[in-house]
Order: sequence, then C-alpha cells, then structure tokens
Amino acid sequence: VITARASYARIKTALTAIDQHDHLELLLIVAASAVLDRYGSAIEVIEKDGFKITARVFNVIEGGDLLGQAKTTGLGIIELSNVISGLAPDVVVTIADRYETMATAISAAYLNIPLVHIQGGEVSGNIDEKVRHAITKLSDLHLVSTTEAQERVIKMGEVPERVIVTGCPSIDLAKEVAGNGQLDFDPYEKYGGVGAAPEVKDGYLIVMQHPVTTEYQAARKQIEETLSAVYRSRKTTLWFWPNVDAGSDGTSNGIRAFREKHVINFMHFFKNMEPLDFLKVLKNCACLIGNSSVGLREAAYLGVPSINIGTRQHRRSRATNVIDVDYDRTAIERALEDQLRHGAYPQSTLYGAGDAGKKIADLIASTEIQSAKFLTY
Amino acid sequence: VITARASYARIKTALTAIDQHDHLELLLIVAASAVLDRYGSAIEVIEKDGFKITARVFNVIEGGDLLGQAKTTGLGIIELSNVISGLAPDVVVTIADRYETMATAISAAYLNIPLVHIQGGEVSGNIDEKVRHAITKLSDLHLVSTTEAQERVIKMGEVPERVIVTGCPSIDLAKEVAGNGQLDFDPYEKYGGVGAAPEVKDGYLIVMQHPVTTEYQAARKQIEETLSAVYRSRKTTLWFWPNVDAGSDGTSNGIRAFREKHVINFMHFFKNMEPLDFLKVLKNCACLIGNSSVGLREAAYLGVPSINIGTRQHRRSRATNVIDVDYDRTAIERALEDQLRHGAYPQSTLYGAGDAGKKIADLIASTEIQSAKFLTY
Amino acid sequence: VITARASYARIKTALTAIDQHDHLELLLIVAASAVLDRYGSAIEVIEKDGFKITARVFNVIEGGDLLGQAKTTGLGIIELSNVISGLAPDVVVTIADRYETMATAISAAYLNIPLVHIQGGEVSGNIDEKVRHAITKLSDLHLVSTTEAQERVIKMGEVPERVIVTGCPSIDLAKEVAGNGQLDFDPYEKYGGVGAAPEVKDGYLIVMQHPVTTEYQAARKQIEETLSAVYRSRKTTLWFWPNVDAGSDGTSNGIRAFREKHVINFMHFFKNMEPLDFLKVLKNCACLIGNSSVGLREAAYLGVPSINIGTRQHRRSRATNVIDVDYDRTAIERALEDQLRHGAYPQSTLYGAGDAGKKIADLIASTEIQSAKFLTY
Amino acid sequence: VITARASYARIKTALTAIDQHDHLELLLIVAASAVLDRYGSAIEVIEKDGFKITARVFNVIEGGDLLGQAKTTGLGIIELSNVISGLAPDVVVTIADRYETMATAISAAYLNIPLVHIQGGEVSGNIDEKVRHAITKLSDLHLVSTTEAQERVIKMGEVPERVIVTGCPSIDLAKEVAGNGQLDFDPYEKYGGVGAAPEVKDGYLIVMQHPVTTEYQAARKQIEETLSAVYRSRKTTLWFWPNVDAGSDGTSNGIRAFREKHVINFMHFFKNMEPLDFLKVLKNCACLIGNSSVGLREAAYLGVPSINIGTRQHRRSRATNVIDVDYDRTAIERALEDQLRHGAYPQSTLYGAGDAGKKIADLIASTEIQSAKFLTY
Repeated sequence: VITARASYARIKTALTAIDQHDHLELLLIVAASAVLDRYGSAIEVIEKDGFKITARVFNVIEGGDLLGQAKTTGLGIIELSNVISGLAPDVVVTIADRYETMATAISAAYLNIPLVHIQGGEVSGNIDEKVRHAITKLSDLHLVSTTEAQERVIKMGEVPERVIVTGCPSIDLAKEVAGNGQLDFDPYEKYGGVGAAPEVKDGYLIVMQHPVTTEYQAARKQIEETLSAVYRSRKTTLWFWPNVDAGSDGTSNGIRAFREKHVINFMHFFKNMEPLDFLKVLKNCACLIGNSSVGLREAAYLGVPSINIGTRQHRRSRATNVIDVDYDRTAIERALEDQLRHGAYPQSTLYGAGDAGKKIADLIASTEIQSAKFLTY
Repeated sequence: VITARASYARIKTALTAIDQHDHLELLLIVAASAVLDRYGSAIEVIEKDGFKITARVFNVIEGGDLLGQAKTTGLGIIELSNVISGLAPDVVVTIADRYETMATAISAAYLNIPLVHIQGGEVSGNIDEKVRHAITKLSDLHLVSTTEAQERVIKMGEVPERVIVTGCPSIDLAKEVAGNGQLDFDPYEKYGGVGAAPEVKDGYLIVMQHPVTTEYQAARKQIEETLSAVYRSRKTTLWFWPNVDAGSDGTSNGIRAFREKHVINFMHFFKNMEPLDFLKVLKNCACLIGNSSVGLREAAYLGVPSINIGTRQHRRSRATNVIDVDYDRTAIERALEDQLRHGAYPQSTLYGAGDAGKKIADLIASTEIQSAKFLTY
Repeated sequence: VITARASYARIKTALTAIDQHDHLELLLIVAASAVLDRYGSAIEVIEKDGFKITARVFNVIEGGDLLGQAKTTGLGIIELSNVISGLAPDVVVTIADRYETMATAISAAYLNIPLVHIQGGEVSGNIDEKVRHAITKLSDLHLVSTTEAQERVIKMGEVPERVIVTGCPSIDLAKEVAGNGQLDFDPYEKYGGVGAAPEVKDGYLIVMQHPVTTEYQAARKQIEETLSAVYRSRKTTLWFWPNVDAGSDGTSNGIRAFREKHVINFMHFFKNMEPLDFLKVLKNCACLIGNSSVGLREAAYLGVPSINIGTRQHRRSRATNVIDVDYDRTAIERALEDQLRHGAYPQSTLYGAGDAGKKIADLIASTEIQSAKFLTY
Repeated sequence: VITARASYARIKTALTAIDQHDHLELLLIVAASAVLDRYGSAIEVIEKDGFKITARVFNVIEGGDLLGQAKTTGLGIIELSNVISGLAPDVVVTIADRYETMATAISAAYLNIPLVHIQGGEVSGNIDEKVRHAITKLSDLHLVSTTEAQERVIKMGEVPERVIVTGCPSIDLAKEVAGNGQLDFDPYEKYGGVGAAPEVKDGYLIVMQHPVTTEYQAARKQIEETLSAVYRSRKTTLWFWPNVDAGSDGTSNGIRAFREKHVINFMHFFKNMEPLDFLKVLKNCACLIGNSSVGLREAAYLGVPSINIGTRQHRRSRATNVIDVDYDRTAIERALEDQLRHGAYPQSTLYGAGDAGKKIADLIASTEIQSAKFLTY
C-alpha cells in the first residue's frame, strides 16, 4: 500500500523485486495523497514505471489540520479494509511512519492478515514516532534499515528472528546513479513546474521542506526562514513542493506569498519527479536543504552535502554529510557557506548497500509469517 | 471513552473519583457496543449511577466478522475525532485492549491530546495483544494494574516515570462487596433475561464466555463444549450473554440452538447487570466458568473458584483460584468437580488492593502530561 | 444493486432476463441488510439461483433507529460510489423505495451514470414516499408497475417517453406457481427456523409484519395486536421475521417476549425462503396477514385472501382480495373470519401479467439513456 | 446548514431575521467547502457578521472529481445526521441545489425532522437540476423565489399551501446597496488576494466562473476562453476564485497556468468577500462575466449588465440585463462590447423585492410543519 509519492520512490526497487519474484504476486494499492493531483499524483509515475495498480483509494478528508489527519486515517481503514478483504492477500506490506499508514496497519491486523513493516525502529522528533512504533506493535515481520533500528524493535518485545536488517530500499535506486548519474535531461522541460528556468550547469541547490505536524501553525514562519536564506544566496535553486500534511497550507501559502512579493529569477518549483531523475538531480546538486530524510539517506550514500533543518529528523542516524541547524535564516546561510566550501563527501552505507529491494522480496517469499504474535517478555 | 459495558464496570470507581476530584472535570463519551440495546446497553446503568453522558457515538458497522471490526474502528476514528476535537479536553483516557479502543487512541494521538492508558502492559493470547501494545505506543501516561505489566511497558521503551502501578479499578468495586456482599435481590426479577428461574440459595454457577476473535468460526463449537459440560452438571446456572465481537453470532446462535433442542430448567440467561449487583452475584457463586478476565481479577480478590477456558487469558497473571482447561466438555466437567469440592479461596491482591480509582484520578490531576514523547532507547 | 432479501425476490426475473440478454451484462451488487445473517442473508439464495455476485457491501451502521438509517445511507453512498466507479457500468438499476436505495440513486446520479428506477410512482403512507419520489427525480428511466404509477411519474415532470409500464417483476414469479404451485416440500425441514412444526395440510395462515419507520416506538404494541389475534385463532401459522429497519428491535422483541410468555404449538417462525418456495407457500395459504406489499401484489395475482394492517400500504392500488384493518386485535380477528369464509379470489393483473422481467431487460437494452435530464415544465 | 460561502451570502438576511425572531432560535451549522481555507472559508465572515456557529462539519473528501462529490455527500450524511440528531431542532433549513445540500436533506428527512427548502423549483442545465428537485421531494415546506418556481413545485405534487413565494433572500442584501452603494473601501487592501492592483475608479469588470460538474474535463478549456476574452479587453478586472466542485482543479489550474504565461497588470484575484462589500463591488461594476447565478439575480436587481456563459444557468428566469453566450472568446468579447456600450439597466424585481429574509423567518415561525407528507395525486 503506497500512500505518498515519497513512499513510492523509497520502495520502488522492492516493488520491482516483488513483481519479478517467482513466488510472489504484486497487488499494488495506491491511496491517500498518492492519488491526488494537488500533491503531484504518484499514479502517472507508477504506471510509467510499468506497475499495474490494483486499486485506488480516495480517502483524504480536507481540513489541512490535525482533525483532517485523524479522519483521513479513519476513512482509510474503512476503505482499505474493504479492498484488502476483497483481495485476500497472503501478506500486507506497509512502509515507514506517515500518519495514514496506520490505516494500512490496522486493516491488515484486524483482518488477521500478516503485516510486514519496512523501516520500523527508527526515531525522529514528532508524532511520526508514535505512529511508527505503534505500527511495529501491529506488525508480524520487521524489515529494518539499520542495525540501530533492529536493536530498538527487538527491545520493544518483538521476536528477534522476525526483525531483519535489509538496508533501506531508497539506497538501491541511489546505487544506480552513484556511478555515472549525469544530469542527462532538462528538468524544466521534462517536469514543468513554475518559476524561472535558471542555469543548472554551474551547480544548484535543492530544497525539500515539509511542514512538521505537531507545530503546524508555525509552518509558515519556518518556510519563510528557509526562503529568506536561499533568496539571499542568489543560487540556482530547485524547490520541491511539500507533501499533503497538517500545515501544508501554511507552508504552501508561505511559498506562494513569498513569490508574490519577490522577483525570483533563480528558483524553480517542482511538484514531482520520477525517482531516478530525482536522484540524478540530487547526485549533481551542490547542497540539499530542508527537513526531508533524503538528506540523511540518499544524500549520505551519494556523498551530497546536506543541511537538515529543525527537529523532523531528530535522533535519526546520520553520516558526516549532514549539518543540523534550527529554523533560522542566519544559521541556514552559514551552514550553506560551509557545505559549498566543503563539497562532496565520501559514500556512506549507513542506510544500506543498495540491495534492500531484493532482500525484502526474498524475505517476504521465504519467511513463514503468521498474524498472531506475542511479546517476548 | 467507554466502548463496552464490561469496560464501564471495570472503570467505574475511577470515573467516580474523577467526577468528584476538585481539579478534574469528567466528560464521558459512550460509544460502540456500549450504546446498543442488542448487547445490553450500558447507557441506562451509567445514568442510573449518576454520571452525565457528554456524547453518544454510534459507530458499530454490522457484519459480525473481522471486516466489521476494522470498519467499526475506522468509523470510530471519524466520529470520536469529531467529538474529541469539539470538546478539546486536556487528556483523553482509554481502557484496556478491545479492538475499538484503538479508535480512541488514534483520535487523541492525532489531535495532539495527551492519552492516558489504563491496563496497559498485560499479555494474553489473541489480537488484543497487538491492540493493547500498539495503544501503549500511542499513549503518554500508563496506569497499569500489576508490577509485571509495569515492567513490560517500561521495557517497550516508555519513560519509567510515566508508567505507574495503580491496581485495576475493577478490584475497587470488588472491595465494596468483599465484606458483606449478600445476594440481597432477586436477579430474575431485577434483570429479566430469559430461561428458567432456578433456585439460587443452594449455590449456583456463573458462565461468561466470549467468542475469541482470531478463531471466530470455531466459536459455535467452543460454546457447545461449555454448554454440554454445564448441562450435564444440572447445577443452577446464571449465564451472561457475550459482548459484540467477531463470532458473536457463532456464540449467540450456539446458545440459541442449544436452548431450542434441550429443555433446561436450571439455567437463566442475562444480558447485563449493574456492576455492584454482578459482584454480589459473583461473590456468592460456587464457581465461575468461561474465558472472561473476571475469573482472574475480581474472582481472585473475592476468593471465588474459577475455571478459565481456552487461550483468551493466556499468559495473564493468575492467583491460585484459577484452573485452566481447553474447550473440552470433559475437562470442564472435571475442573468443575474439583472447584466445587475445594470451595472458596483466600483473598488475592494480585490485581490491586481496592484503591485504584482514587489513584488514577489523583495521577491524572497531578501529572503534567504532554502529547509528544520519545523512546527511551 | 440489491439491498434487501425482499427486493431480490421482487426483482429476480428481471435479473435472469438481464443475465441472459444478448446485449446486456449483469453486474450484481449486494448490500445493506441483504448481506447480513441477522436478517436472513440473501447471499446464499442468490448464489443458489445461479447468479454471480460482483461485489458485497457492508454498510449497515447499528442503532436500530432513525439515526442508524441515515448513517447507513451515508456509508452506503461512500461504499457504493467506490464500487460503481470501479465497475463503470453503462446503467445502474435500483428498486422501489427502501431508505438505503437512496444511496444507490445518489451514487449513480453523482457519478453521471444513467439510473433506472423500478417501481417508481407508487404511493403509500410513510417516509418511503419521500424516498421513492426523490429517487424518481434522480432517475433517467422509470419502469413502473401500474398505469396509475406511470401517470404520477409523468405529472412529476419526467419525460413521458422515459416512463414505461412493465408490470411488477414480482408477478413474474407468481405466474410460475399460479398454474400448479403445489406445496411440494416440507418448509420446516427445508428452512429450519424456530417454533413448533404444526400440520400445514389443512390450511394455514402467513404473517408478514414490518415495523413502520415513522412510528417505530409503537412497533412493539403493533406486533402484539397481530400476535394476539393470530394466537386466539389457534390456526397453523407461518410467521416471517421482519426486515432490518428502525423499530425492528421493537417488533423482534415483541415476538420474542410473546413466545417466552405463551406456549404456542401452532406457530413457526422463518427468517427467509427462496422466492419460488415462498410463492408456493403463499399460493396454498388460507389468508395472508400483515402490512407487506405482498398482500397487494402477489396475493392479488394468486387470488389469496389478504388482511392489510395499518397505513404502510396506504393509497397503493389494491384488488378485491384485500381487507384493510387497523392495528387492532379485534378488527384483525373479524377480518380473518371473513377471509376464511370467503376463500380464494379470482386472479388480478393489476400489478402485471407476468412478463415484467423480460420487458425490463429489453427496455434497458434498447433505450438510449443519458444521465442528464430536464423537467418537462 | 450552510455548505458554501455563496450560499451564506444568499441566505444572510434570512439568518438575521431568524436570529432576531421572538419565536425562533438559530442553530447554525457550517459544513463542506464553507469551512475550508482553500475555497475562502466562510467562517470568518459569518462570525464577523455576529452569528454564533453551533457546529462545524468537515466532510469534503478530496479527488476533484465526481467520485469525490458522491463520497463528500455520503460523509456529509454521516456527520450531519449526528449533529442534527444531537441538536434535535424543530426544523432544518437547506438552500438551493449544491450537491452536498442533499446530505442536509437526507439527514433531516431520515430523522423525521421537518425540512424547509429555500429556492426550490428553479431550473438550470446540469446535475443541480436532479439534486434540486430530489430535495423538493424530501422537503416539507418550500419557500421559493419566483412564481415560476412555485408553479413547478406544485406541479411536482407538493401541497400548494406549503409552497410560498418569498423572493430570493440574496435580493435583500442587494436592496441595502441599491440606493447608495458607494465603493467605500479599497478591495485590495481589505481582502488581499493575488495579482496586480489596477485602478477601479474608471470602471472595472467582475468575473465569476465556476466549473460545470457534468463537463468537468472541459473546465480548463472553458476558463481559458474567458481568460483570453478578458485579457484582450485590457480592462481592470476583479476575478473571484471558483468554489470547490468537480473540475475545480481544471478551472484553478487553468487560471494559474494563464498567470504564469502572461504578464497581467490589470487583473486581481480574490478568494472571498463579505456579502455587502461584494454587492457594493457588483453595484459599481461595468459588467459581470461568468456563469454564476449572481448575474441573473443580484445583477438584475441592481441593473448591472451581465454576460452569462454556457449552460449552467440554462432555463433560469432572466431579466433584460443578461446576454447569453457560449464558452467562446470571440462571443464573450463581442457581448462585452455591447454591454459596456449599453451601461446600467433599470431595476428588476423578478427574483424578489428585498424582504425575503423576513418573510422566510415569519413563515418558518408561523407554519405548522410535519415531516410526513403525501403526493397531491
């Protein structure tokens, strides 16, 4: 079950490995923001990649706030349990920690269908932490990214044989571009978007900043700090629009308002990009700025300098490529100067060696999973 | 939030203590099977006890099976998050591990309202175990019944200062009748129900057997084993109708079919009873038979012999009053003979000393609880 | 879309004709009470009749009252619009006037899929009248039972060419048994049910009494009047359990309470019967008692004496076989004496000549229907 | 129940009259797009006008298409029936014909609460016509705008005494500004919005163009025709953002794309305006362009030239101030030239004389309304 375009990018190699596996059949359910145009529908990308979508679930209830997230999850359970019950799969796979993944987890657990959780055991600094670990308690097989995560899941009382390190599948794609990931396309022409079309040959920045759910009223102020710091740098900037989330309106409106007020001839705004193209863009960028986990995972593997803002990735494992700063324009500016001076970092395999997708498919096929389980203590 | 008549009985003294506390205001939400006549509405009992019901939530989606449970939980989130968002309480309190309590937990967690969980950390043998521990991961304050439960919750990564043993509030009520709990009313006259009205003065049995969710198709066979064993004993029997649950139809239909086929002049079937009256009935019974946790908790405190059938209470702490058997008529018969021969047991405080309600209210009032939290490892 | 076992019986010959039609493909959706055991699931009967069920929709929200009906309809729209949108049929067909048929009508109309309404334009005495005519305003092709109904639909502003008399498909089945509908099976053996097994050879009564939605609190009293009248007659009686509806608990509990209080060795209670078997039972009965439209439709065609109680069939066309009475035990008793004295009536084709199913299939196949339409004035 | 900002503007004087009436109490429910920021929340305006909002209902399910409209209506029934059941009003009032008003109508009808429908009996050219007349069949008192509408409702079988012409309450507000509705504020300063801030003293155009639900894929092309015509005129233009609706993305994206491509220093885009301010802006404008009913109603009363595009207002009564054109840039341009040449028209009372709000309140207070009703034929 894919509920966001970012989750799709992250899991893509696992989907391919499952689809091609002799003993597995892929049934792909696309739901929540992943089916909505407003957030850059993942549907087109998924179909272009050659996957068949088994079911589409429209369960986003508007409100732009916490109540909307809760109700979206509730409707997600109603709709996903219908769909999953109808498909009667042998296992259900869910990813990471977005709020609406809880709908997948509850549907599978309540229908007595074994649940596989990818990327459990990680820690950060917001409601996602509640969601991620609650999903761990509802899951029957845990395929985690790092040994740190593995230790945590086992400590939470899960049976050790059911907690296996695969690395993160997002690194698999990064591996494909790590060797010769030339920027072999014109991003403006291929992906549209809005804003100027500044030259990318001489280096550029990427910004990916999501609203932080537990502080959503501050979302607008937070985005303005980043906008100001980047604006002052006058560097070519490729800005990726935030996901649907509580506060997305604060963030989105902050960006819109800034664009109305300033003439910005060095920024371009994208909604979406195919995963491989995105990684090529990332591979060739001078510095990634924002609060996406991309800065910790793919950027580390590709050796891209990264500035991580705020608490969203709090306590997640990080390699040497990351500088952490607050939502503060001066701090962001200073970190940017440091990273541009430093340049590329050596490759890190902290989050995987590039074979996670295959490992995930093999483990799902070979592990005998049951829906019932018990605490180890 | 009360979602079942049994949960109400268990939490009643805590509600009273909260209601009477100088620094707390009780907002009582009654939902799910607790508002439905078919399962013995808890509404009348609650109001007769003097509590004001703030909101009633009708969220049970029929189906009598696993899909219905999942969808009921989804609708519960939609409705409870509306109600809770409107009331804007300082904390939300949820109890135990019924499937629909997940709706309460998610609503509170997603609305960033601190969640208090009562009876976390216990273990048993079905899907409830997934639900209970997932709720632990969504909760901010854990008020547990036993030291064993406390240790488990702390091991799961919860901050130790937020995990406190209060004992189980169900024992508080038991304390009231422990001294002189005479059967000072006629249960047939006061509570109606169906079946014969056999004499209760010379000792009687109680049966409380719920369908077990992960084995629901076997529910009918399981209830027939118990029915046969009790039928052969020819003892006066007070039988309590099962809660709404997957398989309730299997259990209910098993009972109905048995009654159609046999002339039974020594059994009576009740839907519901006021908590205190039920405890008086329990205190004076010769043996409790079934798979309810009452056999482990209240019966232990009151020294009532108890026969626990099947895996529903698997791995829960138990005192000496319990004999465990399979769903097997012969085993049940033999255990019954043993328990009737043995008679009353000494009081056990394994599940509390009778002051849990007051402790719960005091801790809610005095603890500074926040919605955000982190794993301890 | 079938939402109740009674609707299925009524529409069965049309389903067969659609299924066998060269230019039509039948996609059968079974929803609401028709998928629930508690009300006598229609699923088994439908599958035994050889129809393939395309989708099952569980949308009944419990409550036993008006709020439950409204919410069931709301959930029905959410679920049916998902299913219908996925199937993308050329037309949607809905039947009659049950409250939850509104969910079918709204789903089709809002999805811009042409809607065919069977049995529009009839009148009665409760909320059904609002629902039926509202559905007329949402429908694009009206296949009605009588010329009276046709006139009403046209008066409501519908284009006359889209309002066609087919007769009622329920009469088609009646035609099959009209000739030699011997009672060639033992109803107790074949259909189970509860109660005594009185002799049916010497004549018997049938009772079918549904709760009336706008007076649901009186349901229990109403059923008691009928129970008393029938009880006093001491005639062999085959009683059919009511549908799910607001007040079903009043009616059901009334029946249960009556059975607890009286020893009744001449009544048997059925949940469900295959349509053809039911018609054989009807054909051979001495008198039909209750408030079902069967008394006006099939009974008229088969010449069976009928006692119609209360306002549920108010203003519906009726043949000479019907005596109308109030919910009054004395009036019912007297009417029963009159009907038993009179015996069988001549066949009436007021509600159709037995070829409605074929006409319906042919009209759906041959009519060019669009979703848009305009008032004729 | 208010479900859109436009409906609020239209009904405002009736709300005031109800609020101030000695025998009525106003319980105001705000739902659907009226509570969402993205469409210009009506909440602030309503509260600024001094009304207390009794309940807010978030029921918009995203999708931007027909399925989303159906599901939004389904969730609306679930949520509104909860709220209305809790409030237990004597009557429920719904307005006009937006798709989600069906949720209000069904909730009231199924709860047996009398339903008052304002603006029934009108005709136009899309799905709204199905919705409007279906609501008529669910309503118990019809307060209509014109004598034409009255005749239609009576023809549909409604009891004549329950169908009363009040005029349209939107005209009441227009009456307030008809005398001296100076543009006594700076719309850019007061209402923000985006785009240039062209001079309004020398005359300006207003555009209000909504997507047409049954043709939503064409929405983008349709808006481009209007954009081109207006762009070529180079006239100062105040553009009002469309409501939430199927196709809103097509329309919205069309506007956004046009703005990206063209430098437009004579247009400004608003999300929302207080009703009285809007009418002042309308009163002083040179020509209204689009497909809103404002062009037929308020513009006629105020004598403002109006260009009505497409079929959305098809067959609605219109005064001499309206020129009808297709979605065609040349036709729109030509009509604009004609209207600018003609200038203001004389006042028309086709849609009311300015006292509808008071009439509505008086009729609700004085009419004995029941939930049950029958066709007159």
